[in-house]
Amino acid sequence: MRYSRLFGRTSKTVPSDADSRNARLLVQAGYVDQLMSGVYTYLPLGLRSLNRIKQVVREEMEAIGGQEILMPALTPREPWATTGRWNDPGPEVMFRLKGRGDKDLVLGWTHEEIVTPLVKRFIRSYKDLPVAVYQVQDKFRNEPRAKSGLLRGREFSMKDLYSFHRNQEDLDEFYERAKTAYLNVYRRCGLDAIVTEASGGAFSEYSHEYQVLTENGEDIIYYCPKCQYAQNREISGYRAGDACPKCGEAMGEGKAIEVGNIFRLGTRFTDPFGVTYSDETGKQQPVVMGCYGIGPSRVMGAIVEIHSDDRGIIWPKQVAPYPVQLVLVPSKDGEEAVRLRETAEKLASGLAAVGLEPLYDDREDVRAGEKFADADLIGLPVRLVVSPKSLGAGGVEWKLRSGSDTEIVPIDAVPDRVSDFYNLT
Amino acid sequence: MRYSRLFGRTSKTVPSDADSRNARLLVQAGYVDQLMSGVYTYLPLGLRSLNRIKQVVREEMEAIGGQEILMPALTPREPWATTGRWNDPGPEVMFRLKGRGDKDLVLGWTHEEIVTPLVKRFIRSYKDLPVAVYQVQDKFRNEPRAKSGLLRGREFSMKDLYSFHRNQEDLDEFYERAKTAYLNVYRRCGLDAIVTEASGGAFSEYSHEYQVLTENGEDIIYYCPKCQYAQNREISGYRAGDACPKCGEAMGEGKAIEVGNIFRLGTRFTDPFGVTYSDETGKQQPVVMGCYGIGPSRVMGAIVEIHSDDRGIIWPKQVAPYPVQLVLVPSKDGEEAVRLRETAEKLASGLAAVGLEPLYDDREDVRAGEKFADADLIGLPVRLVVSPKSLGAGGVEWKLRSGSDTEIVPIDAVPDRVSDFYNLT
Repeated sequence: MRYSRLFGRTSKTVPSDADSRNARLLVQAGYVDQLMSGVYTYLPLGLRSLNRIKQVVREEMEAIGGQEILMPALTPREPWATTGRWNDPGPEVMFRLKGRGDKDLVLGWTHEEIVTPLVKRFIRSYKDLPVAVYQVQDKFRNEPRAKSGLLRGREFSMKDLYSFHRNQEDLDEFYERAKTAYLNVYRRCGLDAIVTEASGGAFSEYSHEYQVLTENGEDIIYYCPKCQYAQNREISGYRAGDACPKCGEAMGEGKAIEVGNIFRLGTRFTDPFGVTYSDETGKQQPVVMGCYGIGPSRVMGAIVEIHSDDRGIIWPKQVAPYPVQLVLVPSKDGEEAVRLRETAEKLASGLAAVGLEPLYDDREDVRAGEKFADADLIGLPVRLVVSPKSLGAGGVEWKLRSGSDTEIVPIDAVPDRVSDFYNLT
Repeated sequence: MRYSRLFGRTSKTVPSDADSRNARLLVQAGYVDQLMSGVYTYLPLGLRSLNRIKQVVREEMEAIGGQEILMPALTPREPWATTGRWNDPGPEVMFRLKGRGDKDLVLGWTHEEIVTPLVKRFIRSYKDLPVAVYQVQDKFRNEPRAKSGLLRGREFSMKDLYSFHRNQEDLDEFYERAKTAYLNVYRRCGLDAIVTEASGGAFSEYSHEYQVLTENGEDIIYYCPKCQYAQNREISGYRAGDACPKCGEAMGEGKAIEVGNIFRLGTRFTDPFGVTYSDETGKQQPVVMGCYGIGPSRVMGAIVEIHSDDRGIIWPKQVAPYPVQLVLVPSKDGEEAVRLRETAEKLASGLAAVGLEPLYDDREDVRAGEKFADADLIGLPVRLVVSPKSLGAGGVEWKLRSGSDTEIVPIDAVPDRVSDFYNLT
């Protein structure tokens, strides 16, 4: 993609309404645009990163047997009344609206009330269980204070998986597999998530949150630096310095961002909708349920909070919008300018041909220094510079966004080098 | 995918609320589930087809230079007030709701009011034009009567592209390219769409609709069977039998489904938001705009209306959820049953290995006749049957959903044969 044609540009101006590091960097680097508090448009760069995160999430959900569906955002009142959530939490969380015929509607902020009756239609006997379905969809929550950029939005992307089981044991077994799948998601997205015990509600002692330590986090957790045991302060009796109950190490206290959570719901939702199955003896038994949420947009915000410096974003490999920023240094010398451009164009096509299309800064009227600043702000993992100096030294300058070393790589060796860096070979 | 594990099943019961052929078949075949009038959940099969349609649309939009973004569904009142659409069409079309602080919000039913101010931020001079951005997103319209399954929903998927130009000539040039891209989309989705003149609004003589002839269509068009010139009855002075103004042939009248439309908007939206650019002389000039819509969910409904028979759906190749339905015929003879299953499993893995994962009907407790009926209902282009008879004849039975001939294909030749059928080699 030629930067000169890319929709969305970097900006030197710090947005006046940016309330967090991720909001500031994502807006300034041209990834997102704020429409109103807690509501963002994804520009081409931002949508590419968001889609890569969603793809990682999908792959890990498929790996544990999740089947993707897509439920509506527009939902009728009735199922919320059935579970009691029409009034509790009610409008504190829900966006309510009216349809034709004065019909009460709710914008989906979670989908237990929709998925449970749906799954009921397809469950008859124990042979139909377990089943796990998920969706990746935009959700709506009437947050009292939307804040922190992509971390707490009123409209945000969510992957919500729901699993249905014949008994607690089967749920527990799946729950453990989901735990691992979640850790895989975060690892692949460049986040060190800590599985943290949180309030379990009526049906289990604990639910589990995935927390990422950062000074900008909204939550406070107590965690063991040795064995990673952790509890959210909201439920914890521990304090910093207490001995870890698992390994005895002194526990730490830290601010953290919650990037996902999983719950054992038991029969909280299957009971009100009467979801049962017939067991091997033909007897009706209650179906038990779990739910598992990750917000891809929040994950994107968390990545930027953690992987960034004063100059901009530093994308982890798997979620960068493009693998390479290719910078053409303009020259005032006409003949040299032609040679530089020809080299850069050839390199851009060579990379695209092996599935590594670069973000190619082809602008003629922008100084090299400004291009380097933009590359740092945008934060792709690899920067390649085609300049009079690099050509003189026999190639293109290679530099990682995460480091400061540069080296010259011969033009023809670049595609393999990038491929190796991304472990594609 | 093993049918025994697939979420969503065929049903023999005709849904009581199915108001159209597409709703009936898509519900009975297990592609979608109706949550309420005009609002559907996509089950795994349905989501796969919908995603294939979206992918075709994306490829054709990228081919004409469209850049994908994602705008919010939740929008504030202000930009709608700016263009006058807060009250006209107002609540007849818009879902309005209230956010925190009694703030008026609108669910996006189209996005001119959002994209125009957004694009304004990135346009300074003629060098920034033209620019074309699009999104694929769920839209919301408070339809008086939602009906006809996926054809007229209250929540539905939409691809909306918006183009911005320095003058009418440049818009016209892009508009013609968009026309071709649209015809490519329909052709690839198996639809013969007719470019049909419709009301152009204030800024051009005509807009253009893409109409597909079918007895179940809501629109009526006059069209030339020879040169394909057509007008929507809403604006047409023609009647059936009139001479075509382009070629003289007698024009026909037909019911049709509108599957897309494109408009020259001129400065209808750029004027109220003050979107201008500086030309080569530094003078500010108005930006002119076009918009281009295709509803992937409506396209899906139209495909089913047209490509189906009494037994079920007949998917065009490019949009089928799986390339092949592989049917294992169960046997009461234990030894034979093992041999059949081993053959089918081997075939399923062989196809998956070359990127042609089948929908594999592995059920043991379902008769062959019922499996064939399900295959016809689900409608994948190719049906492969592993039965005692086929093995006796030296292979697997090959049959196209669109025909009635069967033939025996040796097991090892199947992946190449399927590959050839899909032109993948």
